[in-house]
Amino acid sequence: GIGADNDLYINQAIVFIEDAIQYRSINHRVDSKSLWLYRWYYSRTCQWILSLTITIILALVFIEKPSSLTITSDVRYRLSPWNPPCGLTESIELLCFLVFMVDVAVKSYLIGWEEFWKNKWLMAYILTLVVSLTDWIVSLSFFCTENVRIRRILRPFFLLQNSSMMKKTLKSINSTLPEMASVVLLLAVHLSLFTMFGMLLFARTKDGQQDKEWVGYFRNLPDSLTSLLVLLTTANNPDVMIPAYSKNRAYSIFFILFTVLGNLFLMNLLTAIIYNQFRGYLLKSVQSSLFRRRLGIRAAFEVLSSLKETASAQQSCVSVGALLRVLQKAEMDSRCKQAIMRSLKTCSCDQLSAAQFRKLFEELDKDAIREHPPCPEYQSYFMQKMQFAFGHPYFGYLGNVVALANIVSICVVLVMDADKQPSERDDFFLGAINCFFILYYLLEMLLKILAMGLKRYLSYPSNRFDGLLTVILLVLEIATFAVYGFPHPGWRPEFMGLLSLWDMVRLVNMLIVFRFLRIIPNMKFMALVVTTLLDLVKNLRAFAGILVVVFYAFAIIGIMLFKGAIIPVGNTRKNVISWLFGHFQAEIIYCLLYLLTVNLIYRWAKIYFVAWWLISSVIWVNLFVALLLENFIHKWDRRCHREPLSDIEYQRTVELMFRDVLEEPTEEELMEKLHQHPHLQLCR
Amino acid sequence: GIGADNDLYINQAIVFIEDAIQYRSINHRVDSKSLWLYRWYYSRTCQWILSLTITIILALVFIEKPSSLTITSDVRYRLSPWNPPCGLTESIELLCFLVFMVDVAVKSYLIGWEEFWKNKWLMAYILTLVVSLTDWIVSLSFFCTENVRIRRILRPFFLLQNSSMMKKTLKSINSTLPEMASVVLLLAVHLSLFTMFGMLLFARTKDGQQDKEWVGYFRNLPDSLTSLLVLLTTANNPDVMIPAYSKNRAYSIFFILFTVLGNLFLMNLLTAIIYNQFRGYLLKSVQSSLFRRRLGIRAAFEVLSSLKETASAQQSCVSVGALLRVLQKAEMDSRCKQAIMRSLKTCSCDQLSAAQFRKLFEELDKDAIREHPPCPEYQSYFMQKMQFAFGHPYFGYLGNVVALANIVSICVVLVMDADKQPSERDDFFLGAINCFFILYYLLEMLLKILAMGLKRYLSYPSNRFDGLLTVILLVLEIATFAVYGFPHPGWRPEFMGLLSLWDMVRLVNMLIVFRFLRIIPNMKFMALVVTTLLDLVKNLRAFAGILVVVFYAFAIIGIMLFKGAIIPVGNTRKNVISWLFGHFQAEIIYCLLYLLTVNLIYRWAKIYFVAWWLISSVIWVNLFVALLLENFIHKWDRRCHREPLSDIEYQRTVELMFRDVLEEPTEEELMEKLHQHPHLQLCR
Repeated sequence: GIGADNDLYINQAIVFIEDAIQYRSINHRVDSKSLWLYRWYYSRTCQWILSLTITIILALVFIEKPSSLTITSDVRYRLSPWNPPCGLTESIELLCFLVFMVDVAVKSYLIGWEEFWKNKWLMAYILTLVVSLTDWIVSLSFFCTENVRIRRILRPFFLLQNSSMMKKTLKSINSTLPEMASVVLLLAVHLSLFTMFGMLLFARTKDGQQDKEWVGYFRNLPDSLTSLLVLLTTANNPDVMIPAYSKNRAYSIFFILFTVLGNLFLMNLLTAIIYNQFRGYLLKSVQSSLFRRRLGIRAAFEVLSSLKETASAQQSCVSVGALLRVLQKAEMDSRCKQAIMRSLKTCSCDQLSAAQFRKLFEELDKDAIREHPPCPEYQSYFMQKMQFAFGHPYFGYLGNVVALANIVSICVVLVMDADKQPSERDDFFLGAINCFFILYYLLEMLLKILAMGLKRYLSYPSNRFDGLLTVILLVLEIATFAVYGFPHPGWRPEFMGLLSLWDMVRLVNMLIVFRFLRIIPNMKFMALVVTTLLDLVKNLRAFAGILVVVFYAFAIIGIMLFKGAIIPVGNTRKNVISWLFGHFQAEIIYCLLYLLTVNLIYRWAKIYFVAWWLISSVIWVNLFVALLLENFIHKWDRRCHREPLSDIEYQRTVELMFRDVLEEPTEEELMEKLHQHPHLQLCR
Repeated sequence: GIGADNDLYINQAIVFIEDAIQYRSINHRVDSKSLWLYRWYYSRTCQWILSLTITIILALVFIEKPSSLTITSDVRYRLSPWNPPCGLTESIELLCFLVFMVDVAVKSYLIGWEEFWKNKWLMAYILTLVVSLTDWIVSLSFFCTENVRIRRILRPFFLLQNSSMMKKTLKSINSTLPEMASVVLLLAVHLSLFTMFGMLLFARTKDGQQDKEWVGYFRNLPDSLTSLLVLLTTANNPDVMIPAYSKNRAYSIFFILFTVLGNLFLMNLLTAIIYNQFRGYLLKSVQSSLFRRRLGIRAAFEVLSSLKETASAQQSCVSVGALLRVLQKAEMDSRCKQAIMRSLKTCSCDQLSAAQFRKLFEELDKDAIREHPPCPEYQSYFMQKMQFAFGHPYFGYLGNVVALANIVSICVVLVMDADKQPSERDDFFLGAINCFFILYYLLEMLLKILAMGLKRYLSYPSNRFDGLLTVILLVLEIATFAVYGFPHPGWRPEFMGLLSLWDMVRLVNMLIVFRFLRIIPNMKFMALVVTTLLDLVKNLRAFAGILVVVFYAFAIIGIMLFKGAIIPVGNTRKNVISWLFGHFQAEIIYCLLYLLTVNLIYRWAKIYFVAWWLISSVIWVNLFVALLLENFIHKWDRRCHREPLSDIEYQRTVELMFRDVLEEPTEEELMEKLHQHPHLQLCR
């Protein structure tokens, strides 16, 4: 019936508008049941469960067998880690796989069979699940004693496929690969030519004293290659040239030429290429997001305009009532919803054209302009004076000066106490001044709240930071006094309770140093830098995700390749590479290094490390630099063009950064795309 | 009289056009004698003498007293350097000072007294000369035994003030300094806050076993600062965190946070700032060069139009005859001159307007399009076939394949011979194949010359490179055979003549590896990269000059600060910093390191090195990266927009790079500037 049809249209419009808000593709089934399933699948609960499942399956590695999550990294001291019984992690894994199977089934159903065959990500998802399940069955049938667990390497794929931003970023990186490969090829040519030169230059001579360079670095082809590759990372920078340099200064020309060409030119060329290529692709991906948003809104307009109740003649348009019904049911940011409702009410017309409809939803693209609550209005003259004095910026500056004085005093005490034995230290002075300063901070906070009102006070991020730290400091100080009494000369009590007095004082000092960061918004250039960095962190989430994926895969491969070779050695340089891996699976690297020295699986380890160096250090760092350059230059140009309105804008995303450069999709493009929709049959 | 006036005008026009060609300022005296002096001063001979003088005075440091230009850098083995007698270097210095005094006098006279007082560079030049001469007199009156020689530090100034490009670049760097200072300040804040955190975190504890971190890196404020500063350069990257990391993995968070914030964010921010700021200033300086050129041409037009013989009514214009006279006398690129002459002849008019005049001289801005001479035309059918076969690109590719085969064969022999004793080595195989390959190279060269003709062959840079190396290889091979006879199994003759057979073979092999670089123009991406690098080298001359200035000053200050402390120590790490200084004054650094270890002038050395690191490594490398990014992105964009016409363009300069972005100065701007000329009185 018409009523049921109308309900369907309304539901379709709701889903399309939600798609537009989330930058999702609208190419999914649009019948009533599918729409219900779609909204259920994209509901917060479902997505939260999915994220939780991904987190759990990724976190499993910390408790699985060759793991080593102990406090110390030193093999000599650490306790043997807890070994979960066979079947525990496996059953958790099975649960996760079940969730993923539901996920892939729902996703595949929703996009329809024709689309399914075109979607490589979904196919890969199913393949991954099949391989993982097979591996799981093999694992259980061996009672968890098998050596190779392929499914572990595949785990990060689940993280990857769940984030559209990460998929987009991966696509961008993928398009940059040919150019990068060219430079890497160039680097390889550079390396091999110089290796040959080096081998000819530092050949073995008759005089054993003369060929230290040959003995140390150019003994054979693999040695020479390694020496020069490490020189490219500047890790053995002066050492490698010293034997030759002592013999004849002219030999340094070889090394200088190699480093200048390789490090200064080719490596920076990589930065330039990645910056240049990536800049374009980031813009492109943002452009396609914008297209998705406009398409979703246009699709909502089209389905609403085919509602039977608004059968106007030629011009397709949408009744305000229908739109209001849609808006009430759609899930969106309440600020946006209210803004759209408001403009709908001010617009006196009953019917909306496509252009008007689009204009209404432009609210979605706008920055949230945060309005701070007003100051309280005091009646008494005295209170008004107080409000003026303590609401004035100078009061804030005074607070900064006091914080600086506190820092300086801590610094002085630190310098004086640096060489003292713990038993000689007198905590009285530091205790007394910290007590004074913390009281000042408390007073400052209270006066500010008095002047601005609690709500206005809390609406500033810098005040929230400040207040939180002041409260923590106060609590710590009160706890210290409760346990150890008030400070007095020779205040050196014994250990009591959770923390010793010395630890308490140290903690307080650290918090005071941390609190000093409140000066940042007061310094213009610092504020610019910090906001750029915060933006960057937001925009970097997709990159960080991909890095985690690569990181995880590398760690697992490392575990598998170099397993069973964990021999505790008291090697002080064991953690040289552990830095590369953060503190994730440092022991693996530890024993790897051991293996490197005993030349057991020398070659594999070398290839593994070169690959790791290329991916993590070279490519990722360059991507990071490219993004930073892009972000900063945009911000800088904006700063030069116009001064910021009032506060620092914290709400910048990659979409907003490019707003002035983006092109609006045309009516024709949108309609063409809509007519290609696999499930939606438009009337006209 | 009118004739003398006309001659003056013609001479003025000549000088203005030469100014325009060289991008020089036209604000100099314009009377007849001054013009003669001006042309004499800017003649090749004079400028060459000036450059030679600068080179000599800079090179003096290599033979002056604390110098050490010996073959080996090892203090134990090297001979004591030659000490010139007192008065030798001093008299050379005096000669140089005399040249500089003439230089400054001519320069000051030519720009006139009013301008002189505004020109800070000239004032500084005179001041430098006065200080240097005073120091020289003091030096002589002490019979060269005085310790401090200020004039040495001032020497690089002579290099600096002689190059307008370097002065411009210095101005650009100077304008970027405030921004850089902000980031350096931020770095300092970052460093000091983390130092305090670190000192609080790794304080001395009661258990001596537990505070290895404190003992090693955080003993007191200077130690902690140094540890973290060195961590910023990533030189002590994993070592510094290992004691803490072994104790508790969580401590690594401190170091990771420090490195990520400092190295990844702040350091790259510096790159971004320098890139952003510098991009603008480079464009600006090119823009001002263009303005100077247009101004010179316009000034020539104005003086020519006031020639009495062409007294037309309203419209000011220039007779073709006068211009021809000017062109014949002006010194300029013969290609440009001919092109302008040609267009003058094709233009049928007798009088030239300002626009026509300007258009004529646009030839100066154009790239030289190199035309290759034609191939010889052979009569015989056989020769034509030969010409077709050996002039075909495939013949060049075959040559590349043969060169690759040669490289591979050398590589195989190298790998096989790597571990052999020199007495076991048999040079027969390598001798025989190299002989064969060199004969092929000779044949290839001769056939190519046959097909292309000698002139056309030599007009390609790749052929010149190829041919030169082939000839050198041939000469070497003939010399080898002449001395050691033809190769046969067991070819291991004793040492004879200048080089042993083994050295000859090595040299031949190195040249063959070097010759392999001829493949570069055949690979598209490689060619792009190489041309970018070549451009960069051209554009970098000014930077390199400034680096030399800074380098020189630092080395001299280093000599003066750490003089008399040269104590030979058998320290293997003595050359750690020598890398920083190339091989210039490595011993100074050597003893400096010794001093570092004995803590004699610990603090001065530290400050000196931090300054050196900041200037050379941080700022200069970032400038380099900025220039590379700029250059490469421009080139890349151009490559995408349009394909290059035929050959690789080697003639790109910084002026041409920005051509599409430059703005032409307007008529009004030019005329306003001309009317401000201090010496030229225009009639109207």
